Amino acid sequence: MTIINKNFLKLKDNYLFSEISKRVAEYQKFNSSAQIIKLGIGDVVKALPDCVIHSLHTAVDEMAKDESFKGYGPEQGYEFLRDKIVQFDYAANGINIEADEIFVSDGAKCDTGNICELFSNDSKVAVCDPVYPVYVDSNQMAGREICYLKCQEDNNFIPEIPSFFVDIIYLCYPNNPTGTTISMDDLKKWVDYAIKNQSIILYDAAYEAYIKTSKIPHSIFEVDGAKEVAIEFRSFSKSAGFTGLRCAYTVVPKELHGVDESGVRYSINKLWQRRQATKFNGVSYPVQRAAFSLYSEKGQRQMQELIDFYMENAHIVLGTLKSLGFTCYGGENAPYIWVKTPNDVESWQFFDLLLTKYNIVCTPGVGFGSCGQGFIRISAFGTREDINIAMSRLKEKKIIF
Amino acid sequence: MTIINKNFLKLKDNYLFSEISKRVAEYQKFNSSAQIIKLGIGDVVKALPDCVIHSLHTAVDEMAKDESFKGYGPEQGYEFLRDKIVQFDYAANGINIEADEIFVSDGAKCDTGNICELFSNDSKVAVCDPVYPVYVDSNQMAGREICYLKCQEDNNFIPEIPSFFVDIIYLCYPNNPTGTTISMDDLKKWVDYAIKNQSIILYDAAYEAYIKTSKIPHSIFEVDGAKEVAIEFRSFSKSAGFTGLRCAYTVVPKELHGVDESGVRYSINKLWQRRQATKFNGVSYPVQRAAFSLYSEKGQRQMQELIDFYMENAHIVLGTLKSLGFTCYGGENAPYIWVKTPNDVESWQFFDLLLTKYNIVCTPGVGFGSCGQGFIRISAFGTREDINIAMSRLKEKKIIF
Repeated sequence: MTIINKNFLKLKDNYLFSEISKRVAEYQKFNSSAQIIKLGIGDVVKALPDCVIHSLHTAVDEMAKDESFKGYGPEQGYEFLRDKIVQFDYAANGINIEADEIFVSDGAKCDTGNICELFSNDSKVAVCDPVYPVYVDSNQMAGREICYLKCQEDNNFIPEIPSFFVDIIYLCYPNNPTGTTISMDDLKKWVDYAIKNQSIILYDAAYEAYIKTSKIPHSIFEVDGAKEVAIEFRSFSKSAGFTGLRCAYTVVPKELHGVDESGVRYSINKLWQRRQATKFNGVSYPVQRAAFSLYSEKGQRQMQELIDFYMENAHIVLGTLKSLGFTCYGGENAPYIWVKTPNDVESWQFFDLLLTKYNIVCTPGVGFGSCGQGFIRISAFGTREDINIAMSRLKEKKIIF
Repeated sequence: MTIINKNFLKLKDNYLFSEISKRVAEYQKFNSSAQIIKLGIGDVVKALPDCVIHSLHTAVDEMAKDESFKGYGPEQGYEFLRDKIVQFDYAANGINIEADEIFVSDGAKCDTGNICELFSNDSKVAVCDPVYPVYVDSNQMAGREICYLKCQEDNNFIPEIPSFFVDIIYLCYPNNPTGTTISMDDLKKWVDYAIKNQSIILYDAAYEAYIKTSKIPHSIFEVDGAKEVAIEFRSFSKSAGFTGLRCAYTVVPKELHGVDESGVRYSINKLWQRRQATKFNGVSYPVQRAAFSLYSEKGQRQMQELIDFYMENAHIVLGTLKSLGFTCYGGENAPYIWVKTPNDVESWQFFDLLLTKYNIVCTPGVGFGSCGQGFIRISAFGTREDINIAMSRLKEKKIIF
C-alpha cells in the first residue's frame, strides 16, 4: 500500500480564489447583464513589449534551422541572460553578484516553494501575516513548522523582529498583498537578526520594478552582510508581462551557507545547483532570449512603459478611494492597494458589497491571513477602461454603511 | 542555524557527464586537431518541424496585442492541448483517459522527480539497474529507501517481479539507457504485482514515439487495471525536438489512490492538482500552442519524419556494430544502442579506447548503475554526417583487443 505524504492532508483547501469565482458565478447567474470588473487576481493584461515580440520571433527562426537550433540549455540558464542580469540588476546598483550566483527559472513561485527542499523538514519557518499563500502551503507540504509574523497598520506592515529563533524567514517587498515597502533600516534589522542567528532570509522581490520612491531598497543585497544570509527571488512576470511566457531568476550568493547537524558548513549555491540540475531542465530558449531583450535601452524603456501604465492605474484607484474617505496602503511602489473596509466590516462582507452593488471583484484580505481581516486587496493589473469604469461606479454611488 | 536537508549530503556527485567532459577536454588539449564526434548525451540536433515554427510565430503575434494576449494559463494546461492528447495519444489507441487526468508540464524529468512529493518519505522505491539517474537522486533527496532491480542480458533487461514489497516502482520503456522494450505480457506482470500490493508504478514513456514493432505497448494504460496503479509520463522533447522548448505531460488517472496511515484512500489526481497549483505556474503559452500543432495531419507527419531520421541513424549504428561483431541491444524501437564491450572490458576503458583511437564519445554503461558495467550507450541523436563518419572510423580501424 503506497502511503501518501500525510502533510498534504493537513493543507487547508485553497479556498480563496475558488470561493471568489463561486461567488462571482453565483451573482452573474442571477444578474446576467451585470458588467463585472475583475480587480482581484494579480495577472497582467497588456501585450508583451515590442522588443520581446521581436526577439521571440528571431529565436523561433533560429530553432527552425539545424545550424542554429538549440536543445538542452545550460542548467543555470544561458550566460547571455545571466550576464545581463548581473550587469543591469546588480552591478548598476553597486551590488556585486556573479553570474554563477544567478539561476534562471520558470517562475519565482516555483523557486520560493522548491528552495526549502534544501533545508531540514525540522526547520522553523516564519512568514508574514497576511502572506502570499505559496510560502505557507509549500512548507506545510514538507511538514515544516510555520510561525506567523503580524503585519498590521500599527507596525507599518513590517514584521517585528521576533524574540525567538527561526531558521527561515520569508520577506516579500514590495509586498503582496499589502503593496507596502520596507526601508533600508528595517531591512537591515532583519539581516542583522539573520546574521546573529545564522538564519536564512528568502527575499521575494518579484515587484521590485514597481518601486518609484528613492532610497527604498530594490534588493536585499543592498544591505551589508546580506549575501551571507539571503536568497533573492525576482521575476519578469509582473515587470515585463511574462506571466504567460514564464521566466524568473533566483540569486543564491556563494557566501551563503547552511550547516549539517554537526555544524559543518555547506554552500547553499552548490546544493541548489545540484537540486536544479536533477529536478529542472531550464527555461524555453526563445523565452530566455525574450528576457535578454529587456536589457537593452529599448527594452528598459518598454518595460518602464508597462510599469508606468499599471502604476497610473494604481494612482487612479488610490486617488479615488482616498477622495471617498477610504484608508489605503500600498499602491505607490507596488501594483496592489490594500484598502481598509469602512466601519470594521469583515473582508468577505465588503467583497460581497463591492460585487453586488458595484459589480467590482476584489480579493478579501482575510484570504491572505487573519491579519488581513477588515481589508481588501485591489489589483492595478487591469485595463485603463476597467479601472476608470470601476472608479466611476464608486464615485457615483458612494459607499454608505 | 539553518540546518540543511541531510539527504543532500548522501547524494553521490553526479560524476557521469562531468567525468565524460573532463576526459574529452583532456584528450582534446593534447590532440587539438582531433575531430571528436559526440554520441553521448541524448539531446536532439534537428530543427523544429515547420508546423511548430509556424504555430510559435502565430502565438507570439497573439501575445503582441492586448486583445489576444495570454497571461497565466489554466493550472493543468490549456484545454486545447489536453483535448488533443486525450484524442490522439489515448482514445485513438482505445484507451479512455479524460482531459482532467492530463497535467501539462515543462518536462518529464521534473515530473518524475516531483511526483514523489505526494508519497511518504518512508516509501520504498524500486528502480531498474541501469537507471536514468534522476529517479534515484530525486528520491534520495527526500530520504527514501531505494532498491535496485537488475536488468541484464539474462532477463532481457526486464526486471524480475520482486518477492518483497515496494511502494513505488519506476519503469521506463522504451528504456533509457538500454534502448530495450517491454512486452504486454511482462508489463501485465508488473501491473498485477502493483494491484496485488497496492503499489504505484511510475511509467516513463518519454521514448514511446520511437516504437516501430507492433504489439509493443506504447502506454501502460493498454494493460487492464493499470489506471488503478499507474502514472504515465510523456514528453515532446525527443519525439518533436522540444528539449529547448520545454513541454511534457503526465497522466494521473482518477482511479488511482494512495492511503493514509489508517488506510483511508485519497485521490492521487487531486493531490497532484494541489501540488502543481501550489508549486508550478504552467508552460509558456506559445510552447503549448506549438505542442498543439503536432496533433494535426501535418504535425503528425513532420514528427514522424524527425523520428524516422533518428531511427535511421540508429539503424546505421546497429548495422555497423553488428557487422563488426559487437553484441548490441536496443536501437530498434528506441534511439539508444546498448553495446556490450568486447572481451568483458570495463565501460570506462572502452570509453577511453573509443575516444582516443576513434575520437568518438559514448556514455559508459556503468555510469547508469553497476549492471551497466561492460556496456556503453550510443545515442542516435546526432547528425547523419557525424553518424556516418563515426561508423566509417570504426569500420576502417577495426577494434582489436
